[in-house]
Amino acid sequence: MPHFTIEYSANLDDRLDIGAACEVVRKAAVETGIFPLGGIRVRAVRCEHYAIADARQDYGFLDMVLRIGEGRDLKTRKEAGEQIFQALSRHLDSVFASSKFALSFDMQINDKDTSWKRNNIHDALKAEAAHG
Amino acid sequence: MPHFTIEYSANLDDRLDIGAACEVVRKAAVETGIFPLGGIRVRAVRCEHYAIADARQDYGFLDMVLRIGEGRDLKTRKEAGEQIFQALSRHLDSVFASSKFALSFDMQINDKDTSWKRNNIHDALKAEAAHG
Amino acid sequence: MPHFTIEYSANLDDRLDIGAACEVVRKAAVETGIFPLGGIRVRAVRCEHYAIADARQDYGFLDMVLRIGEGRDLKTRKEAGEQIFQALSRHLDSVFASSKFALSFDMQINDKDTSWKRNNIHDALKAEAAHG
Repeated sequence: MPHFTIEYSANLDDRLDIGAACEVVRKAAVETGIFPLGGIRVRAVRCEHYAIADARQDYGFLDMVLRIGEGRDLKTRKEAGEQIFQALSRHLDSVFASSKFALSFDMQINDKDTSWKRNNIHDALKAEAAHG
Repeated sequence: MPHFTIEYSANLDDRLDIGAACEVVRKAAVETGIFPLGGIRVRAVRCEHYAIADARQDYGFLDMVLRIGEGRDLKTRKEAGEQIFQALSRHLDSVFASSKFALSFDMQINDKDTSWKRNNIHDALKAEAAHG
Repeated sequence: MPHFTIEYSANLDDRLDIGAACEVVRKAAVETGIFPLGGIRVRAVRCEHYAIADARQDYGFLDMVLRIGEGRDLKTRKEAGEQIFQALSRHLDSVFASSKFALSFDMQINDKDTSWKRNNIHDALKAEAAHG
């Protein structure tokens, strides 16, 4: 945790560097200070086929869902979410200026009783910190 | 909101026009009358790798998840869901007739306290309506 | 039900046969004994764009979400989840040994009141069992 999954309409390829958008989200997530660095995973899924609003093909969308573990109160989650959303939204100003576009972001909480993980990135980061 | 995400086995490419299926869902969602037009986003994600039931490669699946905002009662959600599912299911009759296939549809409700959006499609639709 | 959706960083293509990983999950799901065979659907979504931890491009991730229907108690779900996770984790030992990698698995329960399905794979399996 946390997992950010972005889904986006394929027509954004001409309007946006999706890898850079993932990096904006990653950096904003780090800056909230509430997530362990080694757990942050942002990714994007390109959707070749889509149908939006009244079906005009030049409409675009980018939707992001964040899944996090239990244990953070609502105030903490709202503030972190707002910070990340604003960073992403600012990054997309040019897309809003040049096209009809819908951005959205929702947060979900995973049930800790049915959650499993294995991760050697945490240890790699600790080793770097110790030797760096 | 609402967000429809379809995941489908890549072997459907030969049996189905996925873009047309997205459009069937979009149209059915509009016809329920319970969603703001500018918020409807349907998309499909092609899954190249999959393993179904007893692992025969000619099995196919199409799974759709709808995420909506809070504020609609269960009866409204059930009726809208049924209407959309029946439209999609009818559209897939030929796939069922020609192959072993699994269709599914689930609805989820987003937590309004941790939901963010920015959308200039609503305004574009209003402007069109006013000038049309 | 059940639906297993895997999302993975595209850099795993060189380290892992994703189709084989899907098959490991399918087989483990069958072996739990708690799922109807004809309902098991495992698929993987390749994520070309991602940003992980401190953004090193050679980090990888594989995240799996299982959506199941209501009606199984927590103990049953935990044991089945553990069994499936261990099978997948063992399968990924070589990826952990050769790279910095994050594996995760979460389970969600679908609301039975807003769940629809149509599936002719169940009947095909029954017919095979009767004639086999």
